[in-house]
Amino acid sequence: MQLHLSTWIEVEAYLKESKGIIFPIGSTEQHGPTGLIGTDAICAEAIARGVGEATHALVGPTINVGMALHHTAFPGSVSLRPSTLILVIRDYVTSLAKVGFTRFFFINGHGGNVATLRAAFAEVYATLADLNFPQADQVQCQVSNWYMGSSVYKLAKELYGDQEGSHATPSEVALTQYVYPEAIKQAPLNPEVSQDHRIYGAIDFRRRYPDGRMGSNPALATPEHGKQFYEAAVKELSSTYLEFVTHR
Amino acid sequence: MQLHLSTWIEVEAYLKESKGIIFPIGSTEQHGPTGLIGTDAICAEAIARGVGEATHALVGPTINVGMALHHTAFPGSVSLRPSTLILVIRDYVTSLAKVGFTRFFFINGHGGNVATLRAAFAEVYATLADLNFPQADQVQCQVSNWYMGSSVYKLAKELYGDQEGSHATPSEVALTQYVYPEAIKQAPLNPEVSQDHRIYGAIDFRRRYPDGRMGSNPALATPEHGKQFYEAAVKELSSTYLEFVTHR
Amino acid sequence: MQLHLSTWIEVEAYLKESKGIIFPIGSTEQHGPTGLIGTDAICAEAIARGVGEATHALVGPTINVGMALHHTAFPGSVSLRPSTLILVIRDYVTSLAKVGFTRFFFINGHGGNVATLRAAFAEVYATLADLNFPQADQVQCQVSNWYMGSSVYKLAKELYGDQEGSHATPSEVALTQYVYPEAIKQAPLNPEVSQDHRIYGAIDFRRRYPDGRMGSNPALATPEHGKQFYEAAVKELSSTYLEFVTHR
Amino acid sequence: MQLHLSTWIEVEAYLKESKGIIFPIGSTEQHGPTGLIGTDAICAEAIARGVGEATHALVGPTINVGMALHHTAFPGSVSLRPSTLILVIRDYVTSLAKVGFTRFFFINGHGGNVATLRAAFAEVYATLADLNFPQADQVQCQVSNWYMGSSVYKLAKELYGDQEGSHATPSEVALTQYVYPEAIKQAPLNPEVSQDHRIYGAIDFRRRYPDGRMGSNPALATPEHGKQFYEAAVKELSSTYLEFVTHR
Amino acid sequence: MQLHLSTWIEVEAYLKESKGIIFPIGSTEQHGPTGLIGTDAICAEAIARGVGEATHALVGPTINVGMALHHTAFPGSVSLRPSTLILVIRDYVTSLAKVGFTRFFFINGHGGNVATLRAAFAEVYATLADLNFPQADQVQCQVSNWYMGSSVYKLAKELYGDQEGSHATPSEVALTQYVYPEAIKQAPLNPEVSQDHRIYGAIDFRRRYPDGRMGSNPALATPEHGKQFYEAAVKELSSTYLEFVTHR
Amino acid sequence: MQLHLSTWIEVEAYLKESKGIIFPIGSTEQHGPTGLIGTDAICAEAIARGVGEATHALVGPTINVGMALHHTAFPGSVSLRPSTLILVIRDYVTSLAKVGFTRFFFINGHGGNVATLRAAFAEVYATLADLNFPQADQVQCQVSNWYMGSSVYKLAKELYGDQEGSHATPSEVALTQYVYPEAIKQAPLNPEVSQDHRIYGAIDFRRRYPDGRMGSNPALATPEHGKQFYEAAVKELSSTYLEFVTHR
Repeated sequence: MQLHLSTWIEVEAYLKESKGIIFPIGSTEQHGPTGLIGTDAICAEAIARGVGEATHALVGPTINVGMALHHTAFPGSVSLRPSTLILVIRDYVTSLAKVGFTRFFFINGHGGNVATLRAAFAEVYATLADLNFPQADQVQCQVSNWYMGSSVYKLAKELYGDQEGSHATPSEVALTQYVYPEAIKQAPLNPEVSQDHRIYGAIDFRRRYPDGRMGSNPALATPEHGKQFYEAAVKELSSTYLEFVTHR
Repeated sequence: MQLHLSTWIEVEAYLKESKGIIFPIGSTEQHGPTGLIGTDAICAEAIARGVGEATHALVGPTINVGMALHHTAFPGSVSLRPSTLILVIRDYVTSLAKVGFTRFFFINGHGGNVATLRAAFAEVYATLADLNFPQADQVQCQVSNWYMGSSVYKLAKELYGDQEGSHATPSEVALTQYVYPEAIKQAPLNPEVSQDHRIYGAIDFRRRYPDGRMGSNPALATPEHGKQFYEAAVKELSSTYLEFVTHR
Repeated sequence: MQLHLSTWIEVEAYLKESKGIIFPIGSTEQHGPTGLIGTDAICAEAIARGVGEATHALVGPTINVGMALHHTAFPGSVSLRPSTLILVIRDYVTSLAKVGFTRFFFINGHGGNVATLRAAFAEVYATLADLNFPQADQVQCQVSNWYMGSSVYKLAKELYGDQEGSHATPSEVALTQYVYPEAIKQAPLNPEVSQDHRIYGAIDFRRRYPDGRMGSNPALATPEHGKQFYEAAVKELSSTYLEFVTHR
Repeated sequence: MQLHLSTWIEVEAYLKESKGIIFPIGSTEQHGPTGLIGTDAICAEAIARGVGEATHALVGPTINVGMALHHTAFPGSVSLRPSTLILVIRDYVTSLAKVGFTRFFFINGHGGNVATLRAAFAEVYATLADLNFPQADQVQCQVSNWYMGSSVYKLAKELYGDQEGSHATPSEVALTQYVYPEAIKQAPLNPEVSQDHRIYGAIDFRRRYPDGRMGSNPALATPEHGKQFYEAAVKELSSTYLEFVTHR
Repeated sequence: MQLHLSTWIEVEAYLKESKGIIFPIGSTEQHGPTGLIGTDAICAEAIARGVGEATHALVGPTINVGMALHHTAFPGSVSLRPSTLILVIRDYVTSLAKVGFTRFFFINGHGGNVATLRAAFAEVYATLADLNFPQADQVQCQVSNWYMGSSVYKLAKELYGDQEGSHATPSEVALTQYVYPEAIKQAPLNPEVSQDHRIYGAIDFRRRYPDGRMGSNPALATPEHGKQFYEAAVKELSSTYLEFVTHR
Repeated sequence: MQLHLSTWIEVEAYLKESKGIIFPIGSTEQHGPTGLIGTDAICAEAIARGVGEATHALVGPTINVGMALHHTAFPGSVSLRPSTLILVIRDYVTSLAKVGFTRFFFINGHGGNVATLRAAFAEVYATLADLNFPQADQVQCQVSNWYMGSSVYKLAKELYGDQEGSHATPSEVALTQYVYPEAIKQAPLNPEVSQDHRIYGAIDFRRRYPDGRMGSNPALATPEHGKQFYEAAVKELSSTYLEFVTHR
């Protein structure tokens, strides 16, 4: 059940069954010479909708732009500041907590979002406590990174070994190829790609990772791999969501 | 050309031809018993993509959640505070202005966004001036409401007369039916619907407009109407965009 | 009844009769070679006091500085950022709402304030709802631009036609001449004056409108015109205020 | 020379002679049963204009609402939060510093503003340093409380002794009587008036000082005293301003 | 009783006896060629612990970094902006007020903190009032500067006369020598030292006070003097604290 | 070399040798019935000073209060909001980056700080880039948790196995016993202790972990263990710091 395709009356009915909602959160940032700028949002959205179908959960609109400040020296990247993203999450959660939602599950496609999301959750709990409405202390938020699930991680290792890297990875590129086969890009990729895991500011990042990749070889990606990642992620995150939403 | 389906290298090339980008901005809010919660985002996104195709403009990711605080007493509505939305717009524009974009065109589907967007633009210009990078004083932002274009407005009057109303209107519902024919909703609609144009806080809004509509009869909407609205809006906003992006 | 000339005991008594208060809001910004920097505040204040007398309403202190960032490349202009003005309005309204005021009527003299005021009202309603005090959901704010009233608008068209323009207009200059006949300024005015209605950042504004006027010929203004504008505006806004303060 | 009665061309000329500007800052707060709510703004404005005339200094619009949170349990009081007032001062000073003003002299009528003003000045200097425009490091701000000048203080002691108190004082009431003789108020004043100098939150304040006065007997005030205070303050602050504006 | 050396169970027990807590607040800023950068925090911490012992009060962790923006042109100085420090104080006080503390006593070692602390207290009271929990209106905050106590002030005058100056004073240096005799520094001190009491931005400060001192001769300091200052301050502030914590 | 025991002249000299600084960051929060409220700050400070001695690095003042909102239902806990802590880190780093520091190494004692610190680093890089001073793009921040070092982690597993738990752990308690042997606390500990790793709001936390511990048995701690942890952590983090400060 997708929030944007529902009416408020349908949401009112849904709330009698469940207090949970899933938000896909991605990023709008460079993903190397062949990765789509929307990669992280595309992956999170596709998987979230799959999880929504599998678990009959409500899926909110995708947060397309996340915390990608370190990518902004590459044209086309768009980022919120962490302080802005905290407010965005606060506003999303308070809007829905006031009408009865208590379980907020963020399916995340971008490592750079995690720290800020966790900071935001702490800020949200404190904000809700100050508002002092019933159930304020029942609200729980969780972020799950689709690419960190054990089955997904294992699959990536099997298919790509060390060439998975850590940004513009073949696994995420494969998933976007599965979702958007019409948007598969080709470009020469330098076989030498830096990978030192360090991330500081935007100018430093571009100096350190000149074509945007971090240790990855996205040329290995195929749409068929993407289907496998999709299915593994949906299966694994469906379990995680159900555990989250039913647990005390 | 859609930003999320492009690579940073393609964006770099695009910037040699144009400094313009289009952002669809909608809302996630109740639209009466039969209107989709995503109505405003769906309409803005569809039209923005049409305008992008017609004008070869780059279209950024849709801003799905806008300023809809007054709708938040209806379950499923999600809103940013105006102060948050101002920061979001500031972050979007500064991310892209720093790499050379100078024309930001927001195709808007929700009246409640307009004031905050305009406030945000003023904040953005001042912020950019303080950063003092080249072209900071060339940056221009504009919001165009698809439903306010003269051809769209005329069509709505012809098709629906006074029953167009001002929220959960048949015109916007028709457009969503055209985009998502699989998500056409049916529900009984009270023929008496309040319409006094006043909007204050969320609780007041729900008291004043008990089923969420403001003077509208969305039962008049058809997917065919939606197609007409789509085409009229794309045509009109394509002209507006081209005038904006080429003007000094 | 003017707030600054009243005691708290008089305000306490007033609250037994009415929950309404009027705030004049203007701006401190260039108004061309002959317009006073305080024009917008002077007009709003004079008219608000007239409305206050006509309707026995309480009139608060004038908000002299508004959102005029686009004028700040001309010396003497002072502006709040939109984000600051939102906080100012929030503070004004919450101070008074907590002691029982529920109708806040802003008589506005500056177009650049409108978007931010509207954004501020939405922010205020949400803030008050979170505070959760009695009547929080009864609070209503409204902005009325004196220069947009139909009788004022018609008078300006009659007297000045196209030379009314949109900034440093003869109508507002006339009104300041009526209020401050001792401060009527003379300066040569270039008969060619740009008028394209576009407003972006401060540097762009000064490039576009080199002497500060936007399409206007303030040399047409006279104190006698000013008196006519004053009387028309007071009459019209008195009705608007009374309708606002008595309406549900 | 009053800013609101000047044109930008006159300000441009003024800047060739002086980089100084005076801002009156008051408050909108209860002043006991007989003191005007606008007392602090009225006094600051009158004296600032006197100083402006005496020194040929430019006088900006009065900041009518200051930091008076502790008075807000009395109806009619309006206050900015300290965090808001800091932003207001930042916006005022940066607007003018960018066009060349470097000396900002605040003539203050309200003790509750002082701490926040001083905090704001520090914030302003840091903000300006970050903007990095020429002369940013030349900007100086100063606050002078008219009621703390030695001649004013001495006069108050002579006229009222201990009955001067520390809020709703006969000296400030006298000054408002001189400025607005038509707004002299009468009300019974309890001869027992608490005076312990402690100020915490708004509810505590009203408990502690039930009629709003702090140790004062404003019934002693006369318009003739007000004239003496006015003249003493203008004389003393004119010297202070000239010293400030000419000093390195 | 020191908070950092206590358990929550001990604090729970303490709250049955007292609602008061002491926070030392200092600064991390240059103190001339021989003064320690931590001088203000060292002094405040030592005295606060002494007062805590003398009065059986709970002493919280030292706020080591305060508002020292004007010192930041000297390497090693660290400062919060006033707007940040206000939030820090708000967070400290609300954390503890919610569990029952109502008396917050800040022992301060740095003049630059005072204005911001006072602004913060006002902000805190308003914040707590909005949270609306029991006893919110009982919370009281106070700042006492150890160096302003009458016995301390008198001692400094006796020992150093005019050479006490106003920054990097022999009295505060002496106190740090008493606390950290192993960290007594020697450096040549120019006998000519500027003292004009003016403080604006950081660059201006360093121009005005080239070696960081303001009119002081810290070479006069001795550890023995430091002991005297310590004892005088502890005695005097213990009285002040007890008066504060027991007063209505 | 400790910053608070140094003069600005010594810091100026240090900057010729190194651009690195270490900040201990802890928390002021409940650590179960026997753990000290200052545990995290005590551990971070002791280790940071050890690392400072071992590597001749400058060590800044301890950040005693961190992000511990989830602990604030236990009396004595003090927390910054994440949004506040971000500003604090921004202020610390910008103060020092402007005078030439480029490597900021945070030795952290509290898991709850990590997400906010990482968010803060991203915010800092963006802030510095906007300030546009030389070397802004050289600034690097890193957080290292002393308790996560491999040798420390291994030692804890050896000594305590599963009874290490995840809050109020015997390892951190041991370290505080080593540093403050005079403050070793005794209290009965329920052998049944909940451990489910979930952390949401403060009220939820106290319900879930009634005595404050998360799966730990701090009764196993001894000062001798503490010494081992101290030495292991200092050794490991000294390497980490040196690698950080010398790496490109």
